[in-house]
Amino acid sequence: MKLKPLGDRLIVRAVEEEETTASGLVLPDTAKEKPQKGKVIAVGDGKWDEDGEKRIPLDVSEGDEVLYSKYGGTEIKIDGEDLLVLRESDVLAKVTS
Amino acid sequence: MKLKPLGDRLIVRAVEEEETTASGLVLPDTAKEKPQKGKVIAVGDGKWDEDGEKRIPLDVSEGDEVLYSKYGGTEIKIDGEDLLVLRESDVLAKVTS
Amino acid sequence: MKLKPLGDRLIVRAVEEEETTASGLVLPDTAKEKPQKGKVIAVGDGKWDEDGEKRIPLDVSEGDEVLYSKYGGTEIKIDGEDLLVLRESDVLAKVTS
Amino acid sequence: MKLKPLGDRLIVRAVEEEETTASGLVLPDTAKEKPQKGKVIAVGDGKWDEDGEKRIPLDVSEGDEVLYSKYGGTEIKIDGEDLLVLRESDVLAKVTS
Amino acid sequence: MKLKPLGDRLIVRAVEEEETTASGLVLPDTAKEKPQKGKVIAVGDGKWDEDGEKRIPLDVSEGDEVLYSKYGGTEIKIDGEDLLVLRESDVLAKVTS
Amino acid sequence: MKLKPLGDRLIVRAVEEEETTASGLVLPDTAKEKPQKGKVIAVGDGKWDEDGEKRIPLDVSEGDEVLYSKYGGTEIKIDGEDLLVLRESDVLAKVTS
Amino acid sequence: MKLKPLGDRLIVRAVEEEETTASGLVLPDTAKEKPQKGKVIAVGDGKWDEDGEKRIPLDVSEGDEVLYSKYGGTEIKIDGEDLLVLRESDVLAKVTS
Repeated sequence: MKLKPLGDRLIVRAVEEEETTASGLVLPDTAKEKPQKGKVIAVGDGKWDEDGEKRIPLDVSEGDEVLYSKYGGTEIKIDGEDLLVLRESDVLAKVTS
Repeated sequence: MKLKPLGDRLIVRAVEEEETTASGLVLPDTAKEKPQKGKVIAVGDGKWDEDGEKRIPLDVSEGDEVLYSKYGGTEIKIDGEDLLVLRESDVLAKVTS
Repeated sequence: MKLKPLGDRLIVRAVEEEETTASGLVLPDTAKEKPQKGKVIAVGDGKWDEDGEKRIPLDVSEGDEVLYSKYGGTEIKIDGEDLLVLRESDVLAKVTS
Repeated sequence: MKLKPLGDRLIVRAVEEEETTASGLVLPDTAKEKPQKGKVIAVGDGKWDEDGEKRIPLDVSEGDEVLYSKYGGTEIKIDGEDLLVLRESDVLAKVTS
Repeated sequence: MKLKPLGDRLIVRAVEEEETTASGLVLPDTAKEKPQKGKVIAVGDGKWDEDGEKRIPLDVSEGDEVLYSKYGGTEIKIDGEDLLVLRESDVLAKVTS
Repeated sequence: MKLKPLGDRLIVRAVEEEETTASGLVLPDTAKEKPQKGKVIAVGDGKWDEDGEKRIPLDVSEGDEVLYSKYGGTEIKIDGEDLLVLRESDVLAKVTS
Repeated sequence: MKLKPLGDRLIVRAVEEEETTASGLVLPDTAKEKPQKGKVIAVGDGKWDEDGEKRIPLDVSEGDEVLYSKYGGTEIKIDGEDLLVLRESDVLAKVTS
């Protein structure tokens, strides 16, 4: 099943990071925070401006890695995989390198 | 009885999915989540922009399959069938394949 | 007494439906939900746009049958009859056939 | 003392109606609901649009009979008489006959 | 100390009224409601419209007598005198005679 | 450390007033209200209008004495001195003499 | 990992200040307030205006020192370092010297 998000929404797949403390210790899974980083796998076309004349372009694209607020979005399960539908406003930043 | 939704509303018929766990087990009905997927059976003409000059077009059409927020919308019963009236903003994504 | 609703308001008279269950049983009155269907008996001229230049037209007309949210509107009693004053945004859909 | 309401406000004097039940019984005073009907005795010039260029005209005029929401407005006592200052948005409908 | 209110604000000095009941009795001070009537002693220049191009003019002027909501505004004490800073939206009506 | 407030913000230094009652008594410190009067020591350039084309000018300037709402703003301590960062909307009035 | 904040967001690294009381005493760490001062290490391109035509420029740049509200923003940990993603509206002022 392939999805096209509506308006200013995007779909991300959470990226699990191997979390290392400052001192170099790898924390066991239960001590980790929930993921805030993900890969964008689909984006909407942007929502309409107030006059219905033009869509407001999104600043993220398919393939981008993003940081997003842990409490935003709606969890969906597609083909057995947990994904998250976010609004662009829930995205804090793009990972650029 | 045929219905024409008003403004930015649409009517969906929930699609029950056979839910299979990652391990291949088919869950009995009571363990399933409430449906989030539906088929669009009617759409409004879009709401008026702020100047009353033009309608803002909807991004979903009759026949589309959509994912929608489980807690949005108003349940109605038409000809003995349970349907849901949503605003387009309750629709998360369209199923494109 | 005849009423002209203001702005984006309309007045509906609730339509009681003979409610039949899927199995064909007619439910006694106390088991029915409160009516959500009504006939529009008066509509406003639409509210002014933000510049006060033009009214935003209503999408319902006198005589239309509409579905409306059970919890919207203000109940009024006119000439001994219970009516409901709604804003157009409380109307979910028009019945077209 | 004569008053000029500001912006989109108006002043109404409540009209007490002799309330008759469907069966023809006149209810004693204590069983009646608080008045929802009133006569407009003064109206504002309308509030300014967002650009401060033009006032948005009011749809009610002095002398109109109106139905208004029982919980809206501010009660004032002028020359020993109880009046109500409403915003136009608290007015549900005009009585046209 | 002289004050110039900012934007859409004004300063009023409450006017104590000798309150007389319908029957002609003058009520002792403790039975009176808090004043709702006042004299405008200073007005702002109006707030800027959304484009920062023009101020939205105020509808009250210095010297006007106004009725205002008892719960609006901020109490200030200037040169030992209790005054009230209101926004114009807290003013219900002007006294015109 | 010198600060430039952002957008529609300003920085004020509270002015302690010798508070005298109507009868001429100088109240001891603990009976005084918290200061509402201050001197503007820095102002922002104004915030952008909705189109990002022009800044909305501020109505207060450096050096102005202002009355401000006691509960607005954020307290900061700069070089050992307590200052307050306000939005212009927290300023009630300018002292003009 | 390098980050590009989205829209009107920026990323700051908190600056710990040696806090000295008015009397010259250096307070021990536990008596200090949480930092409100930080260095901007990345800024977004500004958010789109309402017509989707132009971005609204940010008033802070990479390298600026800023004061920000202690309760704003989202904490993130990048490469073992605690950073804060803020919206520009959480920034109170820039440090100019």
